[in-house]
Amino acid sequence: MKFYHVDFEPVGRRGKCRHDESLLDCARRLGVGIISLCGGLGKFHCCKVQILKGFLSEPTSNELESFSSQELKDGYRLACQTYVTSDCKVRIPLESLTTPQRIQVEGLEVSVNRKPSISPYHIQVSSSSLSDLRADEERIIETLNHQYKLHCRSIDIDVLRNISPLLRSWNWEAQVSLRGNEVIAISPWPTHQLGLAIDLGTTKIAGYLLDLSSGQTLAAEGIMNPQISYGEDIVSRITYAIDSSAKAVKLREVAVEALNQLVNNLCSRVHAKSEEIVEAVIVGNTAMHHLLLGLPVRQLAFSPFVPAVRRALDVKARDIGLSIAPGAYVHLLPNIAGFVGADHVAMLLATEGIWKDESLAIAIDIGTNTEVSLIDNGEISSVSCASGPAFEGAHIKDGMRAANGAIERLQFENDQVNYETIGGVPPVGLCGSGILDAIAQLYLAGVINRDGRISNHARVRIHEGQPEFVLVSEEERSGSPAITITQKDVREIQLAQGAIRSGINVLLQERSYSEEEIKKVIIAGAFGSYIKVISAVSIGMLPLLPLDRFQQVGNAAGIGAKLGLLSDDKRVKAQAIARRTSYIELATAPHFQEIFVQAIYLG
Amino acid sequence: MKFYHVDFEPVGRRGKCRHDESLLDCARRLGVGIISLCGGLGKFHCCKVQILKGFLSEPTSNELESFSSQELKDGYRLACQTYVTSDCKVRIPLESLTTPQRIQVEGLEVSVNRKPSISPYHIQVSSSSLSDLRADEERIIETLNHQYKLHCRSIDIDVLRNISPLLRSWNWEAQVSLRGNEVIAISPWPTHQLGLAIDLGTTKIAGYLLDLSSGQTLAAEGIMNPQISYGEDIVSRITYAIDSSAKAVKLREVAVEALNQLVNNLCSRVHAKSEEIVEAVIVGNTAMHHLLLGLPVRQLAFSPFVPAVRRALDVKARDIGLSIAPGAYVHLLPNIAGFVGADHVAMLLATEGIWKDESLAIAIDIGTNTEVSLIDNGEISSVSCASGPAFEGAHIKDGMRAANGAIERLQFENDQVNYETIGGVPPVGLCGSGILDAIAQLYLAGVINRDGRISNHARVRIHEGQPEFVLVSEEERSGSPAITITQKDVREIQLAQGAIRSGINVLLQERSYSEEEIKKVIIAGAFGSYIKVISAVSIGMLPLLPLDRFQQVGNAAGIGAKLGLLSDDKRVKAQAIARRTSYIELATAPHFQEIFVQAIYLG
Repeated sequence: MKFYHVDFEPVGRRGKCRHDESLLDCARRLGVGIISLCGGLGKFHCCKVQILKGFLSEPTSNELESFSSQELKDGYRLACQTYVTSDCKVRIPLESLTTPQRIQVEGLEVSVNRKPSISPYHIQVSSSSLSDLRADEERIIETLNHQYKLHCRSIDIDVLRNISPLLRSWNWEAQVSLRGNEVIAISPWPTHQLGLAIDLGTTKIAGYLLDLSSGQTLAAEGIMNPQISYGEDIVSRITYAIDSSAKAVKLREVAVEALNQLVNNLCSRVHAKSEEIVEAVIVGNTAMHHLLLGLPVRQLAFSPFVPAVRRALDVKARDIGLSIAPGAYVHLLPNIAGFVGADHVAMLLATEGIWKDESLAIAIDIGTNTEVSLIDNGEISSVSCASGPAFEGAHIKDGMRAANGAIERLQFENDQVNYETIGGVPPVGLCGSGILDAIAQLYLAGVINRDGRISNHARVRIHEGQPEFVLVSEEERSGSPAITITQKDVREIQLAQGAIRSGINVLLQERSYSEEEIKKVIIAGAFGSYIKVISAVSIGMLPLLPLDRFQQVGNAAGIGAKLGLLSDDKRVKAQAIARRTSYIELATAPHFQEIFVQAIYLG
Repeated sequence: MKFYHVDFEPVGRRGKCRHDESLLDCARRLGVGIISLCGGLGKFHCCKVQILKGFLSEPTSNELESFSSQELKDGYRLACQTYVTSDCKVRIPLESLTTPQRIQVEGLEVSVNRKPSISPYHIQVSSSSLSDLRADEERIIETLNHQYKLHCRSIDIDVLRNISPLLRSWNWEAQVSLRGNEVIAISPWPTHQLGLAIDLGTTKIAGYLLDLSSGQTLAAEGIMNPQISYGEDIVSRITYAIDSSAKAVKLREVAVEALNQLVNNLCSRVHAKSEEIVEAVIVGNTAMHHLLLGLPVRQLAFSPFVPAVRRALDVKARDIGLSIAPGAYVHLLPNIAGFVGADHVAMLLATEGIWKDESLAIAIDIGTNTEVSLIDNGEISSVSCASGPAFEGAHIKDGMRAANGAIERLQFENDQVNYETIGGVPPVGLCGSGILDAIAQLYLAGVINRDGRISNHARVRIHEGQPEFVLVSEEERSGSPAITITQKDVREIQLAQGAIRSGINVLLQERSYSEEEIKKVIIAGAFGSYIKVISAVSIGMLPLLPLDRFQQVGNAAGIGAKLGLLSDDKRVKAQAIARRTSYIELATAPHFQEIFVQAIYLG
């Protein structure tokens, strides 16, 4: 019997597929939920997947009927009809996924004095007549300036393109949305002014729809970043983009498409139209920021790793392809450096209330890339750590993203493994917090030593020449392969936690502080919110401090984006934070290699 | 034998086509130059035409081979293979035309203190390094502001999209084009900064490529406005546009396509690239302005005929689809009213040196629509006259546009008709100035009386129940139909000249002036430049004044556009002119009907 390796994206589940097993069966065996209504007969279009890499059986007649020639060319297949003939990478479109990914959209609530960049004005202009031949544009601007003592100077060209019939159909009464001195939208009076805040992560995208007049969050939703199919981490995605301009365009297009999809989802939840969104704020790491805007990324890949743009940007939504109000702008919070982006600034902005009165605080955003800032009486230094996607479940034998069936909590007591899964369903793998718990528990139990070596134990077996610890056995899984922690998994986690810890240590060293002097450790990001802090401290990823000094703040970057949406003052503050943050390139820090080698030891 | 009426656009030649005569033969007989290389065998793709209306013979196998199914659906045919089976309207694509239209691109030269809105700056920025981690954008802005004491605040997003690789390939040295506080282009140092001036007429488009640093015109070229295939005059084109949004989009697209073609032609003449054009100024009448920008036009069609936009506009070139430097703007001079547009403002701007010291002047731009301004010690009143396309050769039996073979000058002495044709080739019809001469000469000779009636004369014959005067007989044309002036032609010209003259008279009446008090009559526009003023005065189109009070100024609108390109002060001046011009709606002027009826008498 032949086996091939199959990688299912965006869920991030990897496994072996038998040559006589359909992709659908393989996915099910691995716990990946692909919708299938026909029971494998290829009757419906439901188990559609896209093959990104690898070779497969010839398309069946059902598939030839189901797809256009362009779709076939793009690698679309029906999972129930397809057998792999080589190692493969398979993308499951969102519509074919049964279990949506868990994506953190919640975070701490921060109150803010609303002062959005968009203000609504009610106008009733006089109708045109033979004795008043002013143009429609002048009519609006003059009424606005006269009535409200403003200095409005122009109306966006896309707004002008509909202005005359709209004004007449509304009987010359309208709500005008002003941004600075420019009219960026016109609508019937009264209309809700909606705003969009986006946290564009390497793996996940969180979106929030806000009412700008009340500040209330009307809807929140998370989706996967579809760019993941073209590279899991920042570096591989940049590498893809600089390979050809067509590939960079592709990355940009799929991200924009996902954002527009997210906008539609958010709007349909509250029965709003996307044109009612008059302003958007987007935060993301520097690479996501650049890829979305179509900015060059080659220079991000080579020392000294500088961004094309670091300061905050205001760009017409249409210039990046985002479908909201025709004249609306997107505000992008500033980046700090090539690998510390606007999402980190947003996180610092959102958590300012926590760190600003502490003499020494650490703010840390754990993800595929981990950014750490040390805040020393308001002075900020930051580093970027290539922690990798291990905490997203990648490169871990039974790792998976946080979807149904993922073990998210784990305890090892009296040689017994107790666990909780997402959705409470039978386990199919481990997500980041589960992996962290497993390593911590095994380390504390002495099954793994400081070096990371797995010792002998009743649950340890040798598989393909390497020791692995059986968390859930074949029997417990009714014949499915056991869920284990392999020696290689431990090494991956050591590298990840070592990267993060050495980032913290470099920052402390640079300012000559010791760990104990840290008053607050702010942990942000989806992974950071779900972990048990004690596990992270146990393995040495985070410094050994009293637990009350740690604060998990959820998706603080998303909160920061919301703050930027609701208040111009917060945008100014974000610029100030970015400006006073000095970036330290880890590779150039004194003794970095030593610090890193030290940090990969557990405990 | 059956005859059908065929209308060849954009040359504007109409005639009868026999059922057994190919479109190519018919075109040749009528003097319309279609390229044909194969001698009517359908071998080459050269005599390509597009059928806009009417029915034809089935496509031959040669045609089926020559065209894609989409082209066939769009009405493309080979003129040498096609026979008409109903009245038809045929468009001859520019590439199939042998004789380009004569388009006025010259005008009076006006000197100007150059002060363009774009300034070039040379910068040499320091390269990025581990000790200087600023982003490329900041590097440029900070260098610029520091070195030249500027307040540059942003770089256009499309410029940012290429900035990093370009800066590095130029070794960190560049020329930056600044507009206000925004960087709109970046190029190697040193680069010529090119500017584009466009006079977008209802029938013709004139384009000028300028060197912004010297003010020199590098190239000038005219092309037909391809919108003509969708309506000859402003009103029919607006009617077309308001029929459906798809049709409005179509009009916009063909105009933008023509502008981009013109840009390419101009650039290739001087071996420049369109991306070197860092600023454009476009003038046109209000309808052309609105259709190009995609602004609403329905309200232009109904009283009180107000524009959507009257003030000057600055729009990103990409937002109207114009392919010049990625971050460049298009400046549109202000309109005065729904039917007095930016082209008239440009004409007033260009001729200011002529009118500003006169106590009373008239400035007149004769075209399909004729705009007239009366300038009374700097106070300006303007009217718009629906003079119609008769002076473009339309609605005149043997009328045609100013192309090869058109009679442009004509004298009638001793019962002899003497004429000159464009290109010196045998006559095929009459263009506007020829028609004007013919009517004037026949009126002065008593062949046409004040009422416009054609009297008996040896050269007058009755054709289809109506008298017509034979200018060039069948014999002189070796058997081709005679070129004549029909009674209906005289009526068309009476309406046209009456419209113009009553416009002038309404303006005089409104300010209580008599004709004799006019010190200067400025005549602009292509037709106005080619006419014999004495002919226009003879028939009463222009007031009877000493000839030295008339001044023909060529394409003054084009000159005005150039001035706006070269000087910001001129843009301010144009705004001032537009603001202090009052518009008089002819239909509402006291006694207008009487004035008009009086004006259509000849003499």
